[in-house]
Amino acid sequence: MHHTMRIEEDGLGRMPLPEDCLWGIHTARAIANFPITGIPLSLFPEFVRALAWVKMAAARANLALGVLAPEKHDVIVAVAAEIIEGRHLEHFRVDMIQGGAGTSTNMNVNEVIANLGLIRMGHRPGDYDHLHPNDDVNRSQSTNDVYPTALRLAIVDQCAAFRDAQLRLCAAFDDRAAAFAHIRKIGRTQLQDAVPMTLGQEFAGFAATIREDIAIIARLSELLLEVNLGGTAIGTRVNTPDGYAERAIAELALVSGLKVTLAGDLVEASSDTGAYVTFSGVLKRIAVKLSKICNDLRLLSSGPRSGFNEIRLPAMQAGSSIMPGKVNPVIPEVVNQVAFQVIGNDLTVTMAAEAGQLQLNAFEPVIILNLLQSMRMLIRAMDTLATRCVVGIEANVAQCEGALENSLVLATMLVPHIGYTRAARVAKTALADGAGVAETAQRLGFGSHEEIAAWLR
Amino acid sequence: MHHTMRIEEDGLGRMPLPEDCLWGIHTARAIANFPITGIPLSLFPEFVRALAWVKMAAARANLALGVLAPEKHDVIVAVAAEIIEGRHLEHFRVDMIQGGAGTSTNMNVNEVIANLGLIRMGHRPGDYDHLHPNDDVNRSQSTNDVYPTALRLAIVDQCAAFRDAQLRLCAAFDDRAAAFAHIRKIGRTQLQDAVPMTLGQEFAGFAATIREDIAIIARLSELLLEVNLGGTAIGTRVNTPDGYAERAIAELALVSGLKVTLAGDLVEASSDTGAYVTFSGVLKRIAVKLSKICNDLRLLSSGPRSGFNEIRLPAMQAGSSIMPGKVNPVIPEVVNQVAFQVIGNDLTVTMAAEAGQLQLNAFEPVIILNLLQSMRMLIRAMDTLATRCVVGIEANVAQCEGALENSLVLATMLVPHIGYTRAARVAKTALADGAGVAETAQRLGFGSHEEIAAWLR
Amino acid sequence: MHHTMRIEEDGLGRMPLPEDCLWGIHTARAIANFPITGIPLSLFPEFVRALAWVKMAAARANLALGVLAPEKHDVIVAVAAEIIEGRHLEHFRVDMIQGGAGTSTNMNVNEVIANLGLIRMGHRPGDYDHLHPNDDVNRSQSTNDVYPTALRLAIVDQCAAFRDAQLRLCAAFDDRAAAFAHIRKIGRTQLQDAVPMTLGQEFAGFAATIREDIAIIARLSELLLEVNLGGTAIGTRVNTPDGYAERAIAELALVSGLKVTLAGDLVEASSDTGAYVTFSGVLKRIAVKLSKICNDLRLLSSGPRSGFNEIRLPAMQAGSSIMPGKVNPVIPEVVNQVAFQVIGNDLTVTMAAEAGQLQLNAFEPVIILNLLQSMRMLIRAMDTLATRCVVGIEANVAQCEGALENSLVLATMLVPHIGYTRAARVAKTALADGAGVAETAQRLGFGSHEEIAAWLR
Amino acid sequence: MHHTMRIEEDGLGRMPLPEDCLWGIHTARAIANFPITGIPLSLFPEFVRALAWVKMAAARANLALGVLAPEKHDVIVAVAAEIIEGRHLEHFRVDMIQGGAGTSTNMNVNEVIANLGLIRMGHRPGDYDHLHPNDDVNRSQSTNDVYPTALRLAIVDQCAAFRDAQLRLCAAFDDRAAAFAHIRKIGRTQLQDAVPMTLGQEFAGFAATIREDIAIIARLSELLLEVNLGGTAIGTRVNTPDGYAERAIAELALVSGLKVTLAGDLVEASSDTGAYVTFSGVLKRIAVKLSKICNDLRLLSSGPRSGFNEIRLPAMQAGSSIMPGKVNPVIPEVVNQVAFQVIGNDLTVTMAAEAGQLQLNAFEPVIILNLLQSMRMLIRAMDTLATRCVVGIEANVAQCEGALENSLVLATMLVPHIGYTRAARVAKTALADGAGVAETAQRLGFGSHEEIAAWLR
Repeated sequence: MHHTMRIEEDGLGRMPLPEDCLWGIHTARAIANFPITGIPLSLFPEFVRALAWVKMAAARANLALGVLAPEKHDVIVAVAAEIIEGRHLEHFRVDMIQGGAGTSTNMNVNEVIANLGLIRMGHRPGDYDHLHPNDDVNRSQSTNDVYPTALRLAIVDQCAAFRDAQLRLCAAFDDRAAAFAHIRKIGRTQLQDAVPMTLGQEFAGFAATIREDIAIIARLSELLLEVNLGGTAIGTRVNTPDGYAERAIAELALVSGLKVTLAGDLVEASSDTGAYVTFSGVLKRIAVKLSKICNDLRLLSSGPRSGFNEIRLPAMQAGSSIMPGKVNPVIPEVVNQVAFQVIGNDLTVTMAAEAGQLQLNAFEPVIILNLLQSMRMLIRAMDTLATRCVVGIEANVAQCEGALENSLVLATMLVPHIGYTRAARVAKTALADGAGVAETAQRLGFGSHEEIAAWLR
Repeated sequence: MHHTMRIEEDGLGRMPLPEDCLWGIHTARAIANFPITGIPLSLFPEFVRALAWVKMAAARANLALGVLAPEKHDVIVAVAAEIIEGRHLEHFRVDMIQGGAGTSTNMNVNEVIANLGLIRMGHRPGDYDHLHPNDDVNRSQSTNDVYPTALRLAIVDQCAAFRDAQLRLCAAFDDRAAAFAHIRKIGRTQLQDAVPMTLGQEFAGFAATIREDIAIIARLSELLLEVNLGGTAIGTRVNTPDGYAERAIAELALVSGLKVTLAGDLVEASSDTGAYVTFSGVLKRIAVKLSKICNDLRLLSSGPRSGFNEIRLPAMQAGSSIMPGKVNPVIPEVVNQVAFQVIGNDLTVTMAAEAGQLQLNAFEPVIILNLLQSMRMLIRAMDTLATRCVVGIEANVAQCEGALENSLVLATMLVPHIGYTRAARVAKTALADGAGVAETAQRLGFGSHEEIAAWLR
Repeated sequence: MHHTMRIEEDGLGRMPLPEDCLWGIHTARAIANFPITGIPLSLFPEFVRALAWVKMAAARANLALGVLAPEKHDVIVAVAAEIIEGRHLEHFRVDMIQGGAGTSTNMNVNEVIANLGLIRMGHRPGDYDHLHPNDDVNRSQSTNDVYPTALRLAIVDQCAAFRDAQLRLCAAFDDRAAAFAHIRKIGRTQLQDAVPMTLGQEFAGFAATIREDIAIIARLSELLLEVNLGGTAIGTRVNTPDGYAERAIAELALVSGLKVTLAGDLVEASSDTGAYVTFSGVLKRIAVKLSKICNDLRLLSSGPRSGFNEIRLPAMQAGSSIMPGKVNPVIPEVVNQVAFQVIGNDLTVTMAAEAGQLQLNAFEPVIILNLLQSMRMLIRAMDTLATRCVVGIEANVAQCEGALENSLVLATMLVPHIGYTRAARVAKTALADGAGVAETAQRLGFGSHEEIAAWLR
Repeated sequence: MHHTMRIEEDGLGRMPLPEDCLWGIHTARAIANFPITGIPLSLFPEFVRALAWVKMAAARANLALGVLAPEKHDVIVAVAAEIIEGRHLEHFRVDMIQGGAGTSTNMNVNEVIANLGLIRMGHRPGDYDHLHPNDDVNRSQSTNDVYPTALRLAIVDQCAAFRDAQLRLCAAFDDRAAAFAHIRKIGRTQLQDAVPMTLGQEFAGFAATIREDIAIIARLSELLLEVNLGGTAIGTRVNTPDGYAERAIAELALVSGLKVTLAGDLVEASSDTGAYVTFSGVLKRIAVKLSKICNDLRLLSSGPRSGFNEIRLPAMQAGSSIMPGKVNPVIPEVVNQVAFQVIGNDLTVTMAAEAGQLQLNAFEPVIILNLLQSMRMLIRAMDTLATRCVVGIEANVAQCEGALENSLVLATMLVPHIGYTRAARVAKTALADGAGVAETAQRLGFGSHEEIAAWLR
């Protein structure tokens, strides 16, 4: 296969590229420099879209402030619009983990927009005299404000899908809580029989704990809407015309439909990654809760003949290559694993945040990758849990109620009436004799049949 | 030394205790069972105080609802008041890390209050017929609502000191920012010379990043005020009289002076540890930021003759046992270490939270220890940083401004006027020639002396 | 597009599959059940190959022990050989993170081998009466011994590439150490000027620290060669003929070329994941060291005009979209990020290992994914660091030696002769006066010109 | 209380100290500078002892090489010997977490030895002309070799106690494995009934997994015996006489009784903390395993009437303040918490190790604290688990064997005889009918009564 090549040049020298290649020399060097994960930008369309939002907003602000020619503006905006629609994704090829604090990502976007624009203008890719990746597409911008701004918008954008998944999972648990509202069972603390409750209360608790997080995600996504666009390299607004930051923010709100605002201290905002640590911490919190819930589902469905066996999870696949008839809690198990991954990713985010130095955090790429991956895995895990497990859970009523009758947990209800010490004696005696609480209490003379029946009601 | 002994008994058997011992058999067994960290409850007076608040509030509610005799109430309240004042601390001896989900802590409190009450009533310690640790002091309560409620109050209580430390540190940075407002220097991204800024902007950024967290701590402490007191064992209110939870919460607000509210779903609230994960995550965020700031302070003060050397930290002690005259950044170094410990503690909290099962998290003791230790270390670290380092930082003006003059960072300011490609050629040529940006730009014919001077202003 | 479909059936019901589909119903259900990461088995060919080794070894052992017909054996071995060669990779499609403890991975392999075998035998895919995924391909096996055995072999297999990358990086540092052997500079502790050293010593230290790890990886890979193949479901050898485990291990050693041995306690070996925790911990150790080295490289190359500026890293790409001429340490930066990811992955492995219950750890899939990803990223990061950075590092001799002359670090060398207290006075005076150590010592009367010159040599 | 004061002076100025105070101005400044954890050196006597070993060895080497007067040597050695015996511990007061890379710890030791030596020589504390903390006690030493050398020896020293605890715990499990050797029960994978095993096999697995780690600790402690004593500040041996390092190592081996050796590359050894990361990683591995075992013990003892209930843990204390008769698995619970703490501490060690810069890691103090705390907690946890739980575990034979009879796990054993598909049909039918495996298989016509009985034996 023969490609006709064009030559591009940068401070390090010249490089041939296929003449119709939509990225340029900066992207090409980055692809060669960072063969790390094999995960290109294009696997995160939400991030590419957000980058295009920023480019469109910047072009509009530059036009308004008189530092970008109308014909260049029009072309940049038109190309950015196509990218926002999801086109050209395959040209965003730099590895998500990259050195250079995101410069290669920004240049990949700048070069693709410039070359698509050149084609649209009737020029050939690489003829940057007519539309320049840096001087035009990146005008009044720096990677250091473009890249974190786009990350924040990408996260906020995904929050809608995240919230939908939370709502669906919450609804699934609510539905089961209603179905199980009247099934009485033993509540357990420290895995030991404790006091009575209903299976519905248990599932309502799952719903409640997930519901709490919906509001937290909403509140956090607001914090992420504070961005540093217009601060350029280190927050001092170098190389921007007067009023640029404010205008670019206004345009960005328009093109993205999100209520972005300008950070108060742009120098601080350029280097600070606290918002990512906080957001990752909340993803971790959600992961911890999901893992706890899945642990409980697996425990409550343990058996079928030797275990808690209070609920039955829907069978989703054969459980074993060797043990016929075995059905495993595969959906909760995969959610547990997602939780462990999200918790590990949170540590990666934490270390990368801590490692920032002076006016910039050079490790934002690994932060971005981990946040977007964690969000995506959690969304999928919550959907999978809701649709492939929770909605089909059934109660094993006989087991729930039978165990309760047979249990010593009723002894606790005697305490207000006969005191802790005597109630403990009832429990101990009943356990040793294999007898019931009521009969034992009566036999020990702590109350009449009628009294005890009333206390235990 | 001969002690006269009294005998106490529980379900496991009899045990002799010194006759004036203020704790009882449950505490004694716990002390023997958990020889783990050597850190007793008494090292966290804020936690003991909060436990006493709960006991006082419960006694008041029990009196109001007619399930506790007035004379018992009076004694419990009086003893609790003494403990709230800080007395009797030495009798809270169980190890902070304990099995049993905090039962031993709760029983330590119940037993000490009962025995102090018995003495006050003219009885002898151990004569629990007159005032019983479980039936009276613990009436209408379970460890599973008492313990997490007290933890939350202890944290909220410490938030005031935490906030003071944040404010002091923020003020110290603000003060230095004002002092350094006019000192121009090189801003750096990725440790490479980037664009000009002032040292004041750098320090204002430190202040801003800390200031942000003050509001976050305040908002979180509100979330922690939602407690499960009255839910007892698993949130079903077993063994409480009607209206108890609501009344106990009202009393708790009165005795603690904190705006506590009752959780919406008590079953969920009994097992959920999400609030601790979130709070710990915010402590981690603060630690990450402090560590980043201290990394910067150490870097900016590196030298004295071979390093960045832009600021001088106050000398706090001789830096070396072998190198005379060496002065080290010991205060930022100790803050870095506190940050690493807080981040590690957050992981411990995370794992303990994830491990909760069914209606209770049995691992709250290690959560409590780590949260209170992290808060305490951060308070001390922020105070130490403010008073022993930041307030005394001086600028090395000659180094800051000399380096800027000598730098290539001005090339960036040419970009809007001559374009990125030509500006890059200026920078590269100037570096190779050891020349300045302005003269090189002029020599390369990219503008007149006057134009260039105007662009670089 | 119309596919003719075949019907397969399992305990959950019937399912249509394209008639030439090489996987079967178990794989199809798993693909639907686990839409989590989008990373299929096929992205880890080293793991697929190791699974095929196990299948081939099991078939041979089954033949030898008379529980598998020769014609079935021949077909299984032939197909496995093709897979070992790297063919058919695209049919391994289950997500790497899956519930079911790896059963879906094992069934994906069993089904693809069965169907390829059926075609080879002249039958159609799905005609399992002639060659059954479970009864023949999986004969005498369970996921619970196949899956961890294959993981261990996959890791050991990658250790060779890992070691090559370590050797290359070590050699690159050794080369630079030799080149820099005579360049004297200031050694620094706590970022403060300390005592003299050579740049060669510094780079030899980097080489030494990497060299240490080569032996550790070799030793650990031996530990991983102890496998549980033949233990089947829980290590009790259920459903294997007498002598199967020993024979299968011997065959596995032959087909893989690796010195595998049988674990001593198969029950323990079935549930234990300690070896993964240890291996992951060593990857973490290596990541920590690489990160420290890259931090140092970035620090030593900081500048160019305002920084340590002792070395120059090769320029790999333009450093900024806004700052012309800026060149950043992009390669060390990407290695730092890999390190953070590996450290986060280690936490994921740790949590998954801790969560194992009773006779099996159901979370091995996420362990496997993280170990293989960490190895791969580290291999690539070490190669990138060696070839795109270290080999091209140059010393800035003038800066190194100039700073040393100008420094106070020589004061330490006076201590054995004039004592710590007086040497400290020399250092303090020299710093205040901007003078040199020798002249100050002489001026303060602590020695003659000749004496002092001799002490400082 | 009036103290007569003495005045000491350093580079920062003069400071009064009580005239009989055994520490000096450097320690006093450090106590004031680092009010962080409240945990002084004296809480780790193993570390203080190791520091005294180093001081004694250094004094001997200095004497042998003619750089320390015999009378000074004799006094230093005599005082160090007293400290090694455990005397004077209360004078080691600096906080374990300190800035300055351990300089304050080293100076605390130097000053206490100097002042005790001065008293012994008939002088007064503070008269350092006669015996100087730096020039004599610290002669030929730097914090940067003394401190890590002592840490390594302290760890190795504790390894003996660690190993004893491992052996005791292993023996306790072995004893129970023997007692339970013939109790048949259901083995479980993924919490679902799987195949038969004995309770003895389960406990033998616990013993085996702990036994493995004993050898690992032994091997690692050998690695830690490679120390950098004699490298002084950065590993270049500055300020040591010829042959000092080798002689000091030989003396250190004598005084400590440990087989210490000199590191190969002293520059690398001065800054490298890889050995700590590895050791901490192994502590983490042990913690993970202990946590898994304790999770299993808690699960197997869940009940008593509604749970797995296969074993009974010895009751160590009443389980609840509200639920009479409840007995909780408090000992496994406390071990779980220790595991979480050790895992968190490992992260702290990791972050501190990663943060090292250039020729030294300034964060060794937090590494030391966490390693010694983790070792201590694990020793105590293993002892507590062995003596207060494992030795008293009893089997619930009826539950174990009854559940097995009633179970479907026998279906697996039919697979080699009737194939996976038919065996699955047996299992499914038996579960639906509430029938047994044997009768169902016979009823479905898959074998005669005798055949089936033989297959299931």
